[in-house]
Order: sequence, then C-alpha cells, then structure tokens
Amino acid sequence: MSMELVFLGTGAAYPSPYRSASALVLRTEGDCWLFDCGEGTQTQLMRSHLKAGRITKIFITHLHGDHMFGLPGLLCTLSLNCSTTAGKEQQPVHIYGPAGLRKFLRVSLELSNSQLLFPYIVHEFVPTADQSPTEGMIDSVKTECDGELHPQEQEGRTIYLDPEEKCYTLLENEQFVVKAFRLYHRIPSFGFTVQERERPGRLNVEKLKELGVRPGPAYGKLKNGESVVLENGVTVHSADVVQTSIPGRKVCILGDCSGLIDDAVQRLCWEADVLVHEATLDDTQKDKALEHGHSTPSMAADFANSCQAKQLVLNHFSQRYKPSSLLKDDDENNIMEMKLQAASVFKGNEVIIAEDFLSVGVPIKKKS
Amino acid sequence: MSMELVFLGTGAAYPSPYRSASALVLRTEGDCWLFDCGEGTQTQLMRSHLKAGRITKIFITHLHGDHMFGLPGLLCTLSLNCSTTAGKEQQPVHIYGPAGLRKFLRVSLELSNSQLLFPYIVHEFVPTADQSPTEGMIDSVKTECDGELHPQEQEGRTIYLDPEEKCYTLLENEQFVVKAFRLYHRIPSFGFTVQERERPGRLNVEKLKELGVRPGPAYGKLKNGESVVLENGVTVHSADVVQTSIPGRKVCILGDCSGLIDDAVQRLCWEADVLVHEATLDDTQKDKALEHGHSTPSMAADFANSCQAKQLVLNHFSQRYKPSSLLKDDDENNIMEMKLQAASVFKGNEVIIAEDFLSVGVPIKKKS
Ligand SMILES: [Zn+2]
Ligand SMILES: [Zn+2]
Ligand SMILES: [Zn+2]
Ligand SMILES: [Zn+2]
Repeated sequence: MSMELVFLGTGAAYPSPYRSASALVLRTEGDCWLFDCGEGTQTQLMRSHLKAGRITKIFITHLHGDHMFGLPGLLCTLSLNCSTTAGKEQQPVHIYGPAGLRKFLRVSLELSNSQLLFPYIVHEFVPTADQSPTEGMIDSVKTECDGELHPQEQEGRTIYLDPEEKCYTLLENEQFVVKAFRLYHRIPSFGFTVQERERPGRLNVEKLKELGVRPGPAYGKLKNGESVVLENGVTVHSADVVQTSIPGRKVCILGDCSGLIDDAVQRLCWEADVLVHEATLDDTQKDKALEHGHSTPSMAADFANSCQAKQLVLNHFSQRYKPSSLLKDDDENNIMEMKLQAASVFKGNEVIIAEDFLSVGVPIKKKS
Repeated sequence: MSMELVFLGTGAAYPSPYRSASALVLRTEGDCWLFDCGEGTQTQLMRSHLKAGRITKIFITHLHGDHMFGLPGLLCTLSLNCSTTAGKEQQPVHIYGPAGLRKFLRVSLELSNSQLLFPYIVHEFVPTADQSPTEGMIDSVKTECDGELHPQEQEGRTIYLDPEEKCYTLLENEQFVVKAFRLYHRIPSFGFTVQERERPGRLNVEKLKELGVRPGPAYGKLKNGESVVLENGVTVHSADVVQTSIPGRKVCILGDCSGLIDDAVQRLCWEADVLVHEATLDDTQKDKALEHGHSTPSMAADFANSCQAKQLVLNHFSQRYKPSSLLKDDDENNIMEMKLQAASVFKGNEVIIAEDFLSVGVPIKKKS
C-alpha cells in the first residue's frame, strides 16, 4: 500500500501566499487523513493533486486559529462536493481534537446555518493542566457545548489520558492504530502517532501444493505458526511455507511545542519512519522560540534523536522564512540554514524541509 | 478625497484559486472599510496593494460561511501586525453584522485563546422574519451570547429596524452616513449604503480680498448664505464669493439576495454612483438562482434601473464562471455572457464584472 505525506500549509501563525496555515494530509491508497486545518486549507487542497472528497478523518493538534480556522469552511465545501454523488448513504467524517473543538464547530455551523450533506462526529481528548502556562488553559465551562447536537452531528467520544500509557487511543482499525500524546505549548497541544499494523506473512500456496498439503485445517495451523504432519509422515514446518511478515510503518506528527510532558512520547514515537516536527524559528532565535512555546531545528533534531526517528521533516516555519525557491542571496532568514542546523544534530537518515505541496513518501518496510 | 472599491474575493459559496470568497474593500485616503470576510481574505489582502493595518471598520452582509469564516483569522493577523507599532493607544475596530456575529467571534477567539492587541466592538442589527424562509431564521436563543465580553471586546450596540425609514443607521460621522437595509436570501441578508456627506463650498479668499472684505464676522455670514454690506456701501452676495458645494458620493453594496423586502431599498440606493450586486448564476439559470436565494445579471440590472444607479458592478459568481483572463473559447459558462445579459437591460453608464483584485474608482462628483 502506498503512503505519502502531502504538506498543504507549512507556515506559522497565519497563512501567507508563500506558506499557507497548518495542514498536512496522510494519503493511503483510498483515504486522506487531514492533520490540522488552518484557514485556506480547502483552497490548498484544490491546488494539490488530492481529492477533498477522499478526506475521511481529520485530526487537530491544538485550537490555535492557524490550525483550525479552516475547518468549518472545509466541511461546508466537502458537503457541496458530495451533493453530486447523493443517493448512497454517506459515511461520517470523524474529527479528533482537543476539548473545545466540538463547540467551535457546532457554533460555527449553527450560526452560518450550514446544512451538511454527510454526518460528522467530533471526538475530543481532554488535556492535562501541565501542558501550558495557566493562562493557556481554557476553563472547561467554556469548552463544553450546551444544547443539542448539530443536525448532521453524531455523538462523539470524550477521551481521557490513559494513566498507564500516558496517551490517548483515538482509533484502532484493521490497518492502523492512532494515538495522541501531550506536548507543551502556549495552549495544550498534541502529537499523533499513526502505527500501521504488521501485515502477517501469507501462505506460499505453490510450495504447499508441491509438498502435498491440501487446503483445509492444516492451512490454518501452519498460518498460526504450528507444524503439521502429513499422511506420508513428512512434517511441514510453518516457517517453510509462510512468508515473512511486513512490519508496519510509523508516522508521527507533532503539533506546536517547546517541549514534552513525559518520556512516554519517546516510546510512542520510537523508531518513527517519518517524524514531522515544528521548527518555527531558527537556532539563533531559540530564546524567542521558547518564550512563544515553539521549537528550533536543533530542538527538533534532539527530540528525533531521542526516539531514534529515521527521517525528520521540519514544518511550521515563521513566515519570515521564505520557501527556498523564493530565497534571495542576501536574505538573513534563510530556510536552508535551518536544514543545516537540524542536520548537524540529527543522527537519522535525512532532514527534510517542508514546503507547501511537498510530498514525502513513506516506503513499505523490508520484511522482518 | 480619492475613493476606490477593491474586490478581494468575487466567488460564491466557497473560495477557489480563481475567485476567493466574498470580500471587498472601500478605500478612502487613510481608511479601509472591509465588506464581508470570507475564508482567505487575509491572504488576498496580502496579495493586494492594500494595507491590512488600515482596516478600521468591517461590515458583514450575512452569516453564510463564505462571507464571514475569514473574520477570526483576520483579526488575529491584524493583531500580530499591530504589535510592531505598540505603545500608542489602539483605536477599536468596529464590526457591523447580523445578530449572531458577536457570538461567532467571541466563541472563535475564546476557544483559540486569541489575545488581540487592539479592542474590537461588534454592533449587531436584528433581522426581521420576512427576510428568509422559516428554516433560514436562527432562533434568537442561539444567536445570543452568554457570559462576559472577550478581554479585548467592548460593548457594541444592538440595532433594530427603524420602522419609518425601514433601515438600520449604523454610523454617522463627519464624512459618511452608513445604513443597512434588508434583503431576501436563504438566511437574512443585508445591503449597505455608504453616503458621503456633501462638502459645503469654500470661501473664495482671493475674490474676498479683491472686494475688500476683511476676515472676521463677514466671512461667517457670507459662508452661511447671507449678504454683507461693506463700509464703502457695496453689497457682496454670498453666491459671488462662495464656491459651489460638492455633492457626496453614494456607494451601495448588496449581500446575497434573490429579492428585496420593501421599496425603501430603492430610496436608499437612489442614484447610487456605484452599485455592487450579486449575480451568482447567469440568466439561463434563473430558476436555480431563485431556488438558492440568488440573482442573475438581468435581475441585478433590473434593480439597478429601479434606483437609477449610474454604475453596476456584478459580483459573487459561482465558481463555474472563470475570470475572463482564464476563459477558454469553448467554455459553456462564460462570464462575458453575464456582462452582456446585464448590459442589455441596464440603463446606466456601465456594467463592470468584478474579478479578484479589480479596483473600481469612485470619482469626485461635479459641483452642483
Ligand atoms: Zn501554529
Ligand atoms: Zn500554536
Ligand atoms: Zn455567498
Ligand atoms: Zn449567502
């Protein structure tokens, strides 16, 4: 299965013509999962090769405007698109984000009188008090929804921190497990780890035929790792007829942060195939970055090293850092400097600088 | 005083790379007034020759997302800009819109924990039940704000329809009077008339010197239209030394609509120098336009004729109508057809098709 990350917006704080506000798509064969949805995301989607109608899940790292102000408009436009394929039952779009997202969407859709043509569900995870300075914590009274569901809204879950694992389990399906973990920022922020499940080895049917094993209960036993004794007395071992399994890929996408809350994060991001980390300001601006709850390239690389990530993508750049294609020789804010700053620290394969519309493939892993 | 309209977004329903969502600036010398603020408006402002920091007033025609989803983000970005000129007392930004806008802004800014560096005030006007089908009216319980003001918010007015004039007086200052009037749409929608005040004629000082009139009470009398008898017995008539006054200009900007509520609108828009009217679909799609609460070019021209408007600007086009610069020969949705449809009906000077970044000057009127 092919898998790619497509960066739709790589700018911090606000959208500009050079870097749109935060948005990133993890595309697998049929599906698009959107991570963050800053203002302008729907227009960036139109400019990209992706199909907006393929978005089935949306994950929001935190409630700063540059990460969610595009969401009501995106849902309205998805609805206009899906009206053309009316008739069949629409699957709900699942939206995951910090407590307060449900109210933001409900109020925005209600006051704009937006009637969606598909159902949506907001699952909220509840931050803890150590994720931001006190003034960044919103009173839970203000994040709670009063009143009934929006007409197209279905009841979502409220997810609390797992006190043992120190994370939030958002979704588990046949292919993926997605968890959220806590970050430190001006307001509570989160990262996501998308773990593809290991694909168990298939039976080598040709070899089974050769050996004279007939389809039936023996097949099941062999697939489960057991050995089978044939009528002719020959023992067939599982390892001889079952192909090796393919390990799942791991993609980790962090929201804005200037640090972690606990070392559970390293465990969750351990050996990430791709780790997307913010680097709002360059290393010379570290004090300012920390003051505003942000990271620099070497901070990102340090974290990537601590979890032995294989590939590091820097993202969420202050608008002062123009894309390299627009860089002038005398520009004192040089995005390529940021790449060097991270690369001089990072011990993994490669540091990639995110730009709007950049696609980063996540190749299938070698059989283990 | 120079005056121009700059179209930042001319598309209906949602923003696209060709036509951004609704936004339009009326620029006078120092000030920018923004009419509607669809998603992406702040990025369009950056692409234009206008300075976002010059926006002092914002008017929202109605609460559909394509007219207001860009507002929270715009305010946040204005705040980032104004931080660089900190120190001096910031004037509040006045925002005018239908009931519900205050809640939308308050919830959006509160949940995103946005701390603006300037004060803002939302003045709401209250629609009447005949402005939309029943399902388009929002229960006033849902538009009311509970709780206190946002930290940077100042108490705004709630403005009810003037039962005699059939309009809402939003603002009256030394230069302008701005009124809102009701339109019929899927949800309550409004238009705005911006009436520049007549500039009284100045004294012709050279001629006064020639005639031997000295500065003092005589100047005042002459300016007030009275005659003055000089010491030498000569009578000086006001009309001889006072220049003729300059009539004020009138700009009318209508929100989405498929019709009017009463004929007060014609009176308010009477002899508009520039009238901006929506034309979402072309004349061949009139039934569909009406069904969705929208207008066609000849409907816009009919209304412009009914108030003897001098110039008609068509705006708010379905995204199927590409800008003329991108038009292909075989495109069945031809924006130039829409211009012809309006021009064949319109009795005023000119029909203009709005495009993103088009500027339309409003010339000073001849002295009356
Ligand atoms: Zn951010
Ligand atoms: Zn943030
Ligand atoms: Zn509209
Ligand atoms: Zn509308």
